[in-house]
Amino acid sequence: MREVAIIGIGQTAIGELWERSLRQLAFEALHAAAREAGIERPDALFVGNMLAPRLNNQQQLGALIADFCGWRGIEATTVEAACASGGVAFQAGVRAVASGMADIVAVVGVEKMTDATKDAVTAALATAADADYEGVHGATFVALNALIMQRYMYEYNVPHEAFAPFSINAHRNAINNPNAMFHSPLTLETYLNAPLIAPPINLYDSSPVCDGAAAVILAPLEMAYDLDVTPIRVLASATATDSLNLDDRRDMLALEAARLSAQRAYERAGVGPNDIDLFEVHDAFSIMAALSLEAAGFAEPGCATQLAAEGGIAREGRIPISTMGGLKARGHPVGATGVYEIVDLVTQLRGEAGENQVPNAEIGMTQNIGGTGATVVTHILAR
Amino acid sequence: MREVAIIGIGQTAIGELWERSLRQLAFEALHAAAREAGIERPDALFVGNMLAPRLNNQQQLGALIADFCGWRGIEATTVEAACASGGVAFQAGVRAVASGMADIVAVVGVEKMTDATKDAVTAALATAADADYEGVHGATFVALNALIMQRYMYEYNVPHEAFAPFSINAHRNAINNPNAMFHSPLTLETYLNAPLIAPPINLYDSSPVCDGAAAVILAPLEMAYDLDVTPIRVLASATATDSLNLDDRRDMLALEAARLSAQRAYERAGVGPNDIDLFEVHDAFSIMAALSLEAAGFAEPGCATQLAAEGGIAREGRIPISTMGGLKARGHPVGATGVYEIVDLVTQLRGEAGENQVPNAEIGMTQNIGGTGATVVTHILAR
Repeated sequence: MREVAIIGIGQTAIGELWERSLRQLAFEALHAAAREAGIERPDALFVGNMLAPRLNNQQQLGALIADFCGWRGIEATTVEAACASGGVAFQAGVRAVASGMADIVAVVGVEKMTDATKDAVTAALATAADADYEGVHGATFVALNALIMQRYMYEYNVPHEAFAPFSINAHRNAINNPNAMFHSPLTLETYLNAPLIAPPINLYDSSPVCDGAAAVILAPLEMAYDLDVTPIRVLASATATDSLNLDDRRDMLALEAARLSAQRAYERAGVGPNDIDLFEVHDAFSIMAALSLEAAGFAEPGCATQLAAEGGIAREGRIPISTMGGLKARGHPVGATGVYEIVDLVTQLRGEAGENQVPNAEIGMTQNIGGTGATVVTHILAR
Repeated sequence: MREVAIIGIGQTAIGELWERSLRQLAFEALHAAAREAGIERPDALFVGNMLAPRLNNQQQLGALIADFCGWRGIEATTVEAACASGGVAFQAGVRAVASGMADIVAVVGVEKMTDATKDAVTAALATAADADYEGVHGATFVALNALIMQRYMYEYNVPHEAFAPFSINAHRNAINNPNAMFHSPLTLETYLNAPLIAPPINLYDSSPVCDGAAAVILAPLEMAYDLDVTPIRVLASATATDSLNLDDRRDMLALEAARLSAQRAYERAGVGPNDIDLFEVHDAFSIMAALSLEAAGFAEPGCATQLAAEGGIAREGRIPISTMGGLKARGHPVGATGVYEIVDLVTQLRGEAGENQVPNAEIGMTQNIGGTGATVVTHILAR
């Protein structure tokens, strides 16, 4: 099995990008990544996307995007695991290089959510849940996350305002990220007075509906050393699963798949939580940032909000998260998010994060979560 | 890169299976395959599916099915390339074993199409085409195939009835396959008098809307030799792409991606068309069987119907196709089809095809086609 390196990254700014089509967004991110890597044409392309079948009436995005990039003929497929689609597409790319079946591989995560009605988006996002046991009862995706947050607050006796630092940190970090959707600081007062979406989740506990694409180019590490790039090594790539429906989990607050995938990734990389310099979490909702930190070993169960309150998640803290704005403020174009997390982490490991640079970032981790935690993929990268 | 073997297969009979859910169908096929292989729990699961996001309001099938099989925790994802989803999921499984990232891998193709309205199915199938350039004009998937068939008939001066042998052969082979949807022989007269769906495509040029699931278990070849099974070796797995929209192809009749993927598969396996003992083609429409045979080198352009007329595609012919009924008569549960092709081929290579057994079948090939030829994946297997 060959070692794999990231040799190029690209992204579009995230927003409501009505003037550009899904394939155009994917092309922009891929073109930027390929130019950075100095490659003309990859051997294969893996696409992470969740919502195009419903919101864009489009499947077979692999061939569609390969063709639009001028790469007609190459191997290309879509990989899907709901909101973890970008992460599992990246894993498929890593595996193609590691196996020796391909040398240069492109991965793109792309999502175009804002051309559809709000009802269509809400119904499409609900397909991340169990249709027969949750969706059929009318449970929206935010409602399911609200159930988890409510349980967390009850079980650990944590007030809602304890989650404010997650959103405030994300918005603060997004200000200096030109690709982020939001560039305004968030105050505690604004957070506390925000309208409720599904109690206890309010507007600022939630990531936005948006469009965007992020891409990376992968190559064998050995080959990367000969190129005019700063290779970032993929130390580990691990996916784990849990039941989709919440009522079938052993412990709704344990995020078992997040724990398992982090554990597998630590083992493969030969590191532990203490070696991780920053952690791009899946903060689709503030409760998910807390649960992810606990499942990955950065806080004891019920203690993540305390870590956040003490500044532990800030740039200078013990474990900086959402360093470029996270899903909350950089944006959450669902199927693209897993690749945006990788792109943000690569930016940090290269030391190119500007005012958001985490000092001495050598090893970093990402976690991309599908549904309310049914598919979780963890990646550990190093410079 | 490790050599990969198939150590177990399973399938449900294909039909209108209203009494069983999507996850139940997947479980039945996987359970049968796992029992045959003698394994309790795979390291990873890859799911091929196209239509669940729209017709079953369900995504994240990887975790859903893994959990339902009692395999909670394992890596699991969905791989999609429209009608080639089963084939690319199988390729993902092969790669996971070949790379050494997993030892025992399960692959399932599953589709449940008959719980939705006909209009919903038609609209969902149209997402295999280019939404912005074809779908937007109201082109259904059968209409696009009809355009190709019309052009073929015009370009090569071939009458419609010349395609009858493809459908007659498929129906003849399905009779002895207990898992096939149809068990009635098809006569030339019935074919000629069939109602038109989209001229020149008639009812018997078309595969049926149906439900079903097929599964395989993969392992490193070295490990397979120690098991109490007849391992079937995966000699090659190759995907190629073309433009989705027909008007952007260099030659509508060339199936360029089918040619490319076959060529790559031949190279990797170190064989040529003359070494292939049987060929499970993607006969979603009879025109596709013809084009696939030509693209893979079994007939000159425009000559596939002649090969069929001379009995070349029959069980005793030069290159037997659709040996268990094909998409036409075994059935075409879209995202499952690529895995059904593999299962049928394994049945032949093991010598377990009963009255449909191709004599001395040692090396066989499958081709799974997404859309009208935008994604094509070719597999070569050997006993």
